[in-house]
Amino acid sequence: MNTSEKIYSGKTKDLYALSNGNILLVFKDDVTGDNGVIDPGANTVIGKVEGKGRKSLAMTDYFFKRLHAADIPTHLVNVDLENGTMEVRRAEPMGKSAKGAGGLEFVCRTRPWGSFLRRYQQYIADVNANLDYLVEITVKDDERGDPLINDDTLVALGLVSPAHLKHAKELTRRVCRIVEDDLRSKGLTLVDMKIEIGLVGDDVVVIDEISADAMRVMDENGKVLEHGTVYEKLINQ
Amino acid sequence: MNTSEKIYSGKTKDLYALSNGNILLVFKDDVTGDNGVIDPGANTVIGKVEGKGRKSLAMTDYFFKRLHAADIPTHLVNVDLENGTMEVRRAEPMGKSAKGAGGLEFVCRTRPWGSFLRRYQQYIADVNANLDYLVEITVKDDERGDPLINDDTLVALGLVSPAHLKHAKELTRRVCRIVEDDLRSKGLTLVDMKIEIGLVGDDVVVIDEISADAMRVMDENGKVLEHGTVYEKLINQ
Repeated sequence: MNTSEKIYSGKTKDLYALSNGNILLVFKDDVTGDNGVIDPGANTVIGKVEGKGRKSLAMTDYFFKRLHAADIPTHLVNVDLENGTMEVRRAEPMGKSAKGAGGLEFVCRTRPWGSFLRRYQQYIADVNANLDYLVEITVKDDERGDPLINDDTLVALGLVSPAHLKHAKELTRRVCRIVEDDLRSKGLTLVDMKIEIGLVGDDVVVIDEISADAMRVMDENGKVLEHGTVYEKLINQ
Repeated sequence: MNTSEKIYSGKTKDLYALSNGNILLVFKDDVTGDNGVIDPGANTVIGKVEGKGRKSLAMTDYFFKRLHAADIPTHLVNVDLENGTMEVRRAEPMGKSAKGAGGLEFVCRTRPWGSFLRRYQQYIADVNANLDYLVEITVKDDERGDPLINDDTLVALGLVSPAHLKHAKELTRRVCRIVEDDLRSKGLTLVDMKIEIGLVGDDVVVIDEISADAMRVMDENGKVLEHGTVYEKLINQ
């Protein structure tokens, strides 16, 4: 690897600055969870699962190529599955704060599930409701559990311009539809997913990863699948 | 009182059905708080403060009359300060769920403070920022701490129509400006406030109360004032 320096160590990825100005993402085998139970949405690393990093990378490669085919830009330059690394363009994460906090996560929901169902349970008349690609936005903050933030607040705090916000929400819904269509062709149902979005110059692009870590997928029997199972069904058939 | 039946017992008010079809609100002396400290935003009644109900009623009367003067409708019919009661038109609280949960609270903020400051502290560059009457909406749910809900979710869950949502947010900002102006004329600064909004037929009207319980007010020295102090400065001068 033609790396110059490690610039960030995340929960599931390390970032290195490359001499050509790009960034190298190194996918790790670390998994997050709560009380010993693996949960990709959790904010604490609880252990390692051999091969998990490469599987996340392979899925990201798989989905990013489908986005490119639909003319949705990502930060991807190239993938080295052997070494578990991905070279990407340097992007400014949308909503990254002046204080250095990480930025926004864009969640897209097809139906009520998980934290959404818990949060609004008194207000959800039908747990099977079609949410029609509902977008929720959260700020990355492990300590505070990634709090939800509304559109007006994002603009009032100067985190995103109204135009970028509109663009990012549309992009989130388009990505969600593409992933849902692809999963459906394999007999799987997308419940919800999250992406990160960044700016490369003036381009609004999908950044970070799109793997089973960042989505909830059900099989034909309505069972929510684990990371490794989704990988098997998508990549290793 | 020409009452027929008690229809609801809230934390700070009881509701009775009147034979003319209206509702009688009886303001109680109960105060809410956490760990023995009075906090109007808390969801647990921790005790009583003699005269508190009448003070909330007097302030609500005071502010509702200012709203009426600005052509903003409320559910108020008449106030009986002596008995601590307010007769109101029967309104359907906006966002009231099919499951019976109470509905929405519309928060308006002039600057970051309280739960907002705690929640987004990593993303607030300037704690003295002008938030320009930012509206946040929460669903009433004591057990879950009145979770924040975004505009798209309100519509997706069928809790509010897009037109009513837009109307309600504009109304919230207008009310906030009127209250802020009035407080300013008495040397006070409005930090944030919350109102409830309901439908009387097709009319979108301010319901419940507007008292120091539902707002955060600072004096000239930047000190946040207690309920009784705001009352003294507004009513009992």
